[in-house]
Amino acid sequence: MSIRRIRCLVGGQGLHEITERVEQKAAEAIAEAEIQEGLCTLYVRHTSASLIIQENADPAVCRDLEDWLDRLVPTGDPLYTHTEEGPDDMPAHIKAALTATSVSIPVLDGRLALGTWQGIFLWEHRHARGDREVILHVGP
Amino acid sequence: MSIRRIRCLVGGQGLHEITERVEQKAAEAIAEAEIQEGLCTLYVRHTSASLIIQENADPAVCRDLEDWLDRLVPTGDPLYTHTEEGPDDMPAHIKAALTATSVSIPVLDGRLALGTWQGIFLWEHRHARGDREVILHVGP
Amino acid sequence: MSIRRIRCLVGGQGLHEITERVEQKAAEAIAEAEIQEGLCTLYVRHTSASLIIQENADPAVCRDLEDWLDRLVPTGDPLYTHTEEGPDDMPAHIKAALTATSVSIPVLDGRLALGTWQGIFLWEHRHARGDREVILHVGP
Repeated sequence: MSIRRIRCLVGGQGLHEITERVEQKAAEAIAEAEIQEGLCTLYVRHTSASLIIQENADPAVCRDLEDWLDRLVPTGDPLYTHTEEGPDDMPAHIKAALTATSVSIPVLDGRLALGTWQGIFLWEHRHARGDREVILHVGP
Repeated sequence: MSIRRIRCLVGGQGLHEITERVEQKAAEAIAEAEIQEGLCTLYVRHTSASLIIQENADPAVCRDLEDWLDRLVPTGDPLYTHTEEGPDDMPAHIKAALTATSVSIPVLDGRLALGTWQGIFLWEHRHARGDREVILHVGP
Repeated sequence: MSIRRIRCLVGGQGLHEITERVEQKAAEAIAEAEIQEGLCTLYVRHTSASLIIQENADPAVCRDLEDWLDRLVPTGDPLYTHTEEGPDDMPAHIKAALTATSVSIPVLDGRLALGTWQGIFLWEHRHARGDREVILHVGP
C-alpha cells in the first residue's frame, strides 16, 4: 500500500490533463508498495472539481465536453438559491455531482492499465485558477 | 480488511447526510483492519438511490442539486415506458445512472481523507421514505 | 489479489448485461486470491462506453435509460466540433463522461454483494457493434 498527494494548479475552467503526473506518482507508489499488479485509486478532495478519464488524442473532445456541460448547467439559472460564492459556484457543484469524485484503475505489469485512448483529467468547474489536491492510493 | 453494513432510514427524496455515521463505521473498520493508511469504499445496494460527496456547509447546495436534477429528470415524461412501479421510479433510475453507486475515499492517519468542505450523502431518488443499505469496505 | 480481463463483444448501442460473466470471473478471482471478503473493482478501458449497475428485472428500464440519454445527448448537435470519427462519437464521449468508468462492489461470503435488483451492464454508446475490454480486480 502506498499513498501520494498530487497538487494541481490549474489555470481555470476546463479539462486539465494530468496523465503524466499521475503515471509518475503511480510509478513511485507501485515501487514503494512492491507490487506488479493491483489497483490505483484517485480521489479529488473538492466539491467543485472532478476526475474524468477521456480521450486525449483530439483536444476538440475536451472542448466539446466542456461546452456541452456548460450549456446543460449554465450560470445565472434562476433555480439557484446558493449564490453567495459567485455565479459559477452552484453550476460547479452540479457539474461535480454529474461526474466522478473517485476513479480506480487496475495496475498491470507495474503500470496503470489505461486503454489506448484514455487520458486522466482534472475537470475544474470554477471559472478562476484553482489549487486542487488529488490523492493517489495504490494497493494490492 | 474490514467490512461494515450501514442501514440508512431516509425520510424521502433528497440528499441525506451520512458523514458522521460513515466516519464512525470507518473508524471501527480501520481499527479492526489495524491500518493507518488505506482505502475506504462505499457501495449502495440499490438502483434508485446513489452516493454523492458534496458540500455540507450551506444546505442550499443540496436543495439546489435536488431541484436541478428534478427538473432535468421530471416525473410524467411521456418517454418512460417503465411506469408500473410509480411515476417516481423511472426518474429515480435515471438519476441513479447519472450519479455514483460506489465511491472510494483514501484513509490517511487513521481517518477518511475528506476535503475541508466534503460531506458524504445518500441521495434518495424515490419520493417516499426509504430503507437503504450501504456497505463500507476498508482495505490496505 | 487477482485480475481478470473480460472481453465484451456487444451488438451495438445500449445496455448489455454482463452480470453472469462478471460473477463467473469474480468467482475465479476470489478463489485465486483466497479471500471470502474483499473488494471487486471493474474498469472499462474505453472512452465511449461505460459501466452501470442498474435494475435487471424489467428490460424496459434499460430501454428507457438508453432513450432518455439519447435525447439528452443527441447526434447532430451543432455544438460538436469533434466530428471526424462519425456523428455518434462525440455524443458517446459525453455519455461516457456522465456515467462510470470504474465501479467497486464489496465481496461478502465469497460473492459480489449486489443488491436484490442490481445487475451489471456494459453501456455501449457507439452505434455499431463494439469489442470492449473490462478489467476485473479482486483485492482484500
